[in-house]
Amino acid sequence: MFISFEGIDCCGKTTQVKLLTEQLTEKSIDYLLLREPGGTIISEEIRTILLDAKNKNMTQITELLLFSASRAQLVSEVIKPALQKNSLVLCDRYVDSTTVYQGYGRGLTLGAVKTINRVATFDVKPDKTFFLDITVKEMESRQALSNVKKDRMELNNDEFYSRVREGYLEVANEEPERFVVIDGKQSIETIREIIWKEVEGMLPIKY
Amino acid sequence: MFISFEGIDCCGKTTQVKLLTEQLTEKSIDYLLLREPGGTIISEEIRTILLDAKNKNMTQITELLLFSASRAQLVSEVIKPALQKNSLVLCDRYVDSTTVYQGYGRGLTLGAVKTINRVATFDVKPDKTFFLDITVKEMESRQALSNVKKDRMELNNDEFYSRVREGYLEVANEEPERFVVIDGKQSIETIREIIWKEVEGMLPIKY
Repeated sequence: MFISFEGIDCCGKTTQVKLLTEQLTEKSIDYLLLREPGGTIISEEIRTILLDAKNKNMTQITELLLFSASRAQLVSEVIKPALQKNSLVLCDRYVDSTTVYQGYGRGLTLGAVKTINRVATFDVKPDKTFFLDITVKEMESRQALSNVKKDRMELNNDEFYSRVREGYLEVANEEPERFVVIDGKQSIETIREIIWKEVEGMLPIKY
Repeated sequence: MFISFEGIDCCGKTTQVKLLTEQLTEKSIDYLLLREPGGTIISEEIRTILLDAKNKNMTQITELLLFSASRAQLVSEVIKPALQKNSLVLCDRYVDSTTVYQGYGRGLTLGAVKTINRVATFDVKPDKTFFLDITVKEMESRQALSNVKKDRMELNNDEFYSRVREGYLEVANEEPERFVVIDGKQSIETIREIIWKEVEGMLPIKY
């Protein structure tokens, strides 16, 4: 079983991934938690290039291809073997991030982005994707509170993030079976319960 | 004007590029010499990952995407601006290497490789490509003489290189206007003369 978490920055997905893994551990359910870009030696090397704030003149195409290269390695080395062993795989961001950040956000041709996505994932898709939806305004007020230094990817403007959010909504609309769209302004506890209920329903044994 | 040099390992292209640049210098013709993968800070970082012999479990798709990412950065940061200033750009390997090494050699779907090539080059193609053709047997006897430690890309077998060579011949056949196919077993001096004659014919002023 393969579950991904998506959303714009500060949407709360990392918190929710953490809460889900705690609950899984409590129920003695094994899982594999992955973050993108990264998760293999090669993918982490690529991650370093991608997030280095010095690389600010990176072209959008280079960025797309590097994210995809990192993912291809992760899918082949880790995700596919894990799914073959019936492991539960959790991904903090996956292919939808590329579609919306590089396709919708950067304005690259969606057809080309989708071809590259297909090649880079070996057609491996999540069974379920939780999209934590917040507005760009909400993201900004959360960012103002956090005061963490931004990496290269986070140095984008409002309009960029608006396109990214619209992209998520469109992609979610195209695949209603796979996507669970969650209002990210709800309390952490409420969101945790929504996610757990979905995950519980997918588990082969009930807890 | 944009010229690329192609061929399997040990075909003599690096020697010929050097001879051409010496002749250009002698005639006071400016040029920009580039090597792939590399040529920008980001591209050189990607090159390090690609050539590191430790990364031997890199998937073929990851390799394709990394070469393409490196190229996208080089085209955008260096090649396009140089061509806009009417500079003479020389490339030791370019997009045809990806088509034949990853497409023909590794057996990746040619359609996907071509889509990725188009995206990564922003449709910038060489005006002229010199393909120095040698057989795999010839390559091996030259390799045996050179005794240099192989990098990750060079750790391939005979059949791989046979497919790469066949790929070059097919690609050259598809674009006879762009490709100059040169028998790489000829003397260095003969090949130098063939290349110079072609380049001279392309220069706006005759020397």
